[in-house]
Amino acid sequence: MSRLTIVPVTGIGEVSKGDDLAALICDAVEQQGDVLLDGDIVVVTHKAVSKEEGRVVEISSEAEYRALVEDEAAEIIRRRGDLVITRTKHGFICANAAVDRSNVAGGHAVLLPVDPDRSAHRLRTRIQQRTGTTIGLVITDTFGRPWRRGLVDVAIGISGVKAIEDFRGTFDTHGNELVVTEVAVVDEIAAASDLVMGKATGIPAAIVRGLDVAGDGRASDLVRPASEDLFR
Amino acid sequence: MSRLTIVPVTGIGEVSKGDDLAALICDAVEQQGDVLLDGDIVVVTHKAVSKEEGRVVEISSEAEYRALVEDEAAEIIRRRGDLVITRTKHGFICANAAVDRSNVAGGHAVLLPVDPDRSAHRLRTRIQQRTGTTIGLVITDTFGRPWRRGLVDVAIGISGVKAIEDFRGTFDTHGNELVVTEVAVVDEIAAASDLVMGKATGIPAAIVRGLDVAGDGRASDLVRPASEDLFR
Repeated sequence: MSRLTIVPVTGIGEVSKGDDLAALICDAVEQQGDVLLDGDIVVVTHKAVSKEEGRVVEISSEAEYRALVEDEAAEIIRRRGDLVITRTKHGFICANAAVDRSNVAGGHAVLLPVDPDRSAHRLRTRIQQRTGTTIGLVITDTFGRPWRRGLVDVAIGISGVKAIEDFRGTFDTHGNELVVTEVAVVDEIAAASDLVMGKATGIPAAIVRGLDVAGDGRASDLVRPASEDLFR
Repeated sequence: MSRLTIVPVTGIGEVSKGDDLAALICDAVEQQGDVLLDGDIVVVTHKAVSKEEGRVVEISSEAEYRALVEDEAAEIIRRRGDLVITRTKHGFICANAAVDRSNVAGGHAVLLPVDPDRSAHRLRTRIQQRTGTTIGLVITDTFGRPWRRGLVDVAIGISGVKAIEDFRGTFDTHGNELVVTEVAVVDEIAAASDLVMGKATGIPAAIVRGLDVAGDGRASDLVRPASEDLFR
């Protein structure tokens, strides 16, 4: 195993509808003296992508926010007071249908991209064209978990990387077959990247270097089918 | 934000009861030409710690394994066929009470440390004494999640680091107060480290460099109280 480096991409600034986010990321990478290399994974928070795609809604009241959450949700899984755990149209289970009011201008809320895998593919293609490299691209959001306190970043849109690393049928150093070891490697990449992005610092992208996870996964690979899920 | 580096610690080899794991880690770091620095976080898989502490049990049949799982569990949360979701005595909710038969000699199973925070403190203290540094220490295990396919590494024992980074009361770049943003930073460290450790490669430790997360967290900080949990 080689060492892993995670480089925050700073200086991107505020993203608005119609901006060329791929170009903003490439410019920022250059301006901080870095160069994208083959095999790098560019990780971008969904908020930057959603803003570029115009997935921002004006809201003037708490009631409007609540209505927006209900509208974005495909299903309400649990409800307690103001806390609503939802399934989004993409299949992700998270609080408030991932409708978010932080890191956006007051009186606005940011929705998830309509098709985050497609957004990831689009950004990846543009960055590859601009830089002449072959990269992976991961779009993240910040989700809570049942049972464990605190939020972690997960992948909600991916392109050019595996979602799951499947070790089934391989053997450990003792010769035991690894029976059910499917690792959500792209969620681990998302979590790792959040360590350099922070929540209040306005850093919407990072470069992960040193991993060999090229593949053609989709974020839907990460969605556990309801029939297999014991906790809905 | 500075960049983050994650260095796998190779060459530790098989750990047995009574070994000095802290010394094995320090030796391996030296032998690969690395040096521990103040602020580094040493991440260790629980399996190495459990083996050092003799938390390995002989099992001669599937029935014995099942009995061991029931014995290690404080509570059975869900059961479907052979899959048992449990609460461990530490409060962690995971499959099979975290009793594991991979990466151990055939006919054996590895249990969690009795007190993983105490194990983390012990390892940290010994590594600090040996190296003259101030470090953090995180012990990890690999857990599944409801709703999302694939496993990710999480922290089960910590020393010298925060468990949760609490952004409540801080403001984003738009001047919005971040209301409920508690990030499980030590779980993100665990997930990040798994990217260089792999599941079949016998690499039980990594060094995470470039984070400022010193603190006095405990793994129990990560356990969501049953009263706040909507999914038990």
